[in-house]
Amino acid sequence: MLIVKAHVLFSGGKDSALSALLLEPYFEIQLVTCHFGILPTGETASEIAKELGFTHEILRPDMKILEDAAEIIKKDGFPNAAINYIHRRALELLAKKDEVELIADGLRRDDRVPRLEHSEIQSFEDKHKILYCSPLMGFGRLTINKMLESNLIITEEESAAILKCDYEAELREYLRREIGEEETRKHFPASHKQSRVISRIRHEHKNQV
Amino acid sequence: MLIVKAHVLFSGGKDSALSALLLEPYFEIQLVTCHFGILPTGETASEIAKELGFTHEILRPDMKILEDAAEIIKKDGFPNAAINYIHRRALELLAKKDEVELIADGLRRDDRVPRLEHSEIQSFEDKHKILYCSPLMGFGRLTINKMLESNLIITEEESAAILKCDYEAELREYLRREIGEEETRKHFPASHKQSRVISRIRHEHKNQV
Repeated sequence: MLIVKAHVLFSGGKDSALSALLLEPYFEIQLVTCHFGILPTGETASEIAKELGFTHEILRPDMKILEDAAEIIKKDGFPNAAINYIHRRALELLAKKDEVELIADGLRRDDRVPRLEHSEIQSFEDKHKILYCSPLMGFGRLTINKMLESNLIITEEESAAILKCDYEAELREYLRREIGEEETRKHFPASHKQSRVISRIRHEHKNQV
Repeated sequence: MLIVKAHVLFSGGKDSALSALLLEPYFEIQLVTCHFGILPTGETASEIAKELGFTHEILRPDMKILEDAAEIIKKDGFPNAAINYIHRRALELLAKKDEVELIADGLRRDDRVPRLEHSEIQSFEDKHKILYCSPLMGFGRLTINKMLESNLIITEEESAAILKCDYEAELREYLRREIGEEETRKHFPASHKQSRVISRIRHEHKNQV
């Protein structure tokens, strides 16, 4: 029944979690968190993955990627291009692993970053001889919220205490250590609401891999 | 558990069927086939819907829509804009129905038509106070094929005998009656491979609505 494994880039947030849930009836799910080790968020992601019932691994990219991203953000004054940059490097790193056949992420219809153009997706698939998908790309925010509310318990707070393991969290922390809190804050949108998955609502008769 | 019903535009083809399957764990599914009554394909769609285990209704748009689409195709010399036109009218017709809250279709990442721009989707949702999604939009052809092969039995033939109930089939037939087979053929791509769903592969422990 399960033809192939899907490696899902997973931050511990609701989007990447729902992405995995959508694929679950079709593929064996392996969650993969891209983590530079700047914050202790890799463990958080592992715990959430366990709660969701999926196997999980940490992908440790070269620190050079975070350094380059920090340079981009200092030049631009806002994080969009830097986050796009890290996401592409994470995808490439994952695509290079021998056992990887299908990569998924949590990008949505309304996301401005990260964002891949159609031609870029085709090049990425062709170059690495893998398949790539973004299961939430055809869904808007409100529809995704509807799907979430019956399947995942989420927490949302303006707080660093519930950091998920996303690129932005580590990028901020890296910059903070380099240029200080005040300067760093200027490079990011003022409101930085965190959300991460607490637990999964399990339904009877639901397909569990 | 089921928060809302999803009305899925359904041709009897593999894409709209898979779209419904993807939404099935999250919403009650109502399949809706847009059918002008030019060909007896509405019944085919009903039978396939029954085989899939979903409720089904036929949406009968004004013949004026097909007439207008035929004019577009005669002017353009190819069917893209005409098919885009019919799809938008079908979406609007469905959106105007009182009980409709969420509309889905079978559009994929690689489809050139029908295709809706992001701004157009937002206007459509706002204007009709509904949600719209294309569950396959984040998936490429090969990934979709992988998902299909473990869930649906499909037939594919270069044959009018297995017509599904899509816009192109009725548009071709309408034009054929108006301008003849030979002229009509000039307006469509040479190879017109038909595919439609035969049956569903049911898995144990799978969530069945």
